[in-house]
Amino acid sequence: MKFPSKVLEEAVNAISSLPGIGKKTALRMVLHLVQEESNKAEKISEALIKLKSEIRQCKHCHMLADNDICNICITQSRNNGILCIVETIRDVMAIEDTSQFNGRYHILGGVISPIDGIGPDQLNIDSLIARVNTDEIKEIIMAVSPTIEGDTTIYYLSKKLKDFNIKISTIARGVAFGGDLEYADEFTLGKSINARMPYYAH
Amino acid sequence: MKFPSKVLEEAVNAISSLPGIGKKTALRMVLHLVQEESNKAEKISEALIKLKSEIRQCKHCHMLADNDICNICITQSRNNGILCIVETIRDVMAIEDTSQFNGRYHILGGVISPIDGIGPDQLNIDSLIARVNTDEIKEIIMAVSPTIEGDTTIYYLSKKLKDFNIKISTIARGVAFGGDLEYADEFTLGKSINARMPYYAH
Repeated sequence: MKFPSKVLEEAVNAISSLPGIGKKTALRMVLHLVQEESNKAEKISEALIKLKSEIRQCKHCHMLADNDICNICITQSRNNGILCIVETIRDVMAIEDTSQFNGRYHILGGVISPIDGIGPDQLNIDSLIARVNTDEIKEIIMAVSPTIEGDTTIYYLSKKLKDFNIKISTIARGVAFGGDLEYADEFTLGKSINARMPYYAH
Repeated sequence: MKFPSKVLEEAVNAISSLPGIGKKTALRMVLHLVQEESNKAEKISEALIKLKSEIRQCKHCHMLADNDICNICITQSRNNGILCIVETIRDVMAIEDTSQFNGRYHILGGVISPIDGIGPDQLNIDSLIARVNTDEIKEIIMAVSPTIEGDTTIYYLSKKLKDFNIKISTIARGVAFGGDLEYADEFTLGKSINARMPYYAH
């Protein structure tokens, strides 16, 4: 791609450094910003600078926050006895969007994956143990990816937590709502048969 | 989507104002920027500010430029006798990427489209006529979209230019390279048969 202008090229290169954005998409965005008149470029620019300078990580759960403690940890009405362990910020947002969980969260920051060089030390496990020691947690829900690495992480954590009197559960795995049995992989389908649930008519 | 942080929400909203970017994609980008450490957010921010403050429009051809005259117009070695009329900046970049054209360009800024409220007055036609009056142009290539609006624009321009001794041509229309006859629309296929070309063995 030949650029007619140096500043255009720099802007396209900067935007295309974002994940999932190629040069052509970046060019479309940049030309849109050049041509529109409502100061979108300035707004994006300001929002990004503000983001990087002001955003913090919650001291308790490692969620993104505007202050030292995140909105979820600071909410008094939530159930302190139940802790949901997830991999990422987006997992917390996804679970919050379901409105099905009213406990606390703890973000691991990933799962144990020797191939990617991620061992327990790279995850927020020490802070989890510290919370288990101080908070009165009765149940921990492991809401990590249904993968080998996720299972390894659950196993590792369950060993670490075995001396505490805490019930450990995992989120249900099975055929997704609206999914088609025919297209479910055999492992998932097998698990969903083994973990079958009693049916109650509404 | 519930956001854990106000600055995060503002950044996602700003990014998702770009064309083709939804909230989920914007969130993925913003979280990427929060987590990476090479100052990408600052670089994007600077590049956008620089873009908006420094970019100009070429006085001759309306291309984006770093100066008053764009890189193409300033190049002495190009053929002044042949002018290629296009709709947008991206069209110029696309033709330049082919390396098949060594003349000058003129960007109309669109095509005549009464439905969208775009008449000849909204296009860069006055500056085109001014160039035709002063520059020694022998041929004009109409490289606009092969649509009704494009054809209308070509017709309008050809009327405007009829008193000048200039050869007017349009880019060839036909079945695209690698395209399948079966899937070409009948209008295109009909045109490509009417405009058939003599074949020379290489």
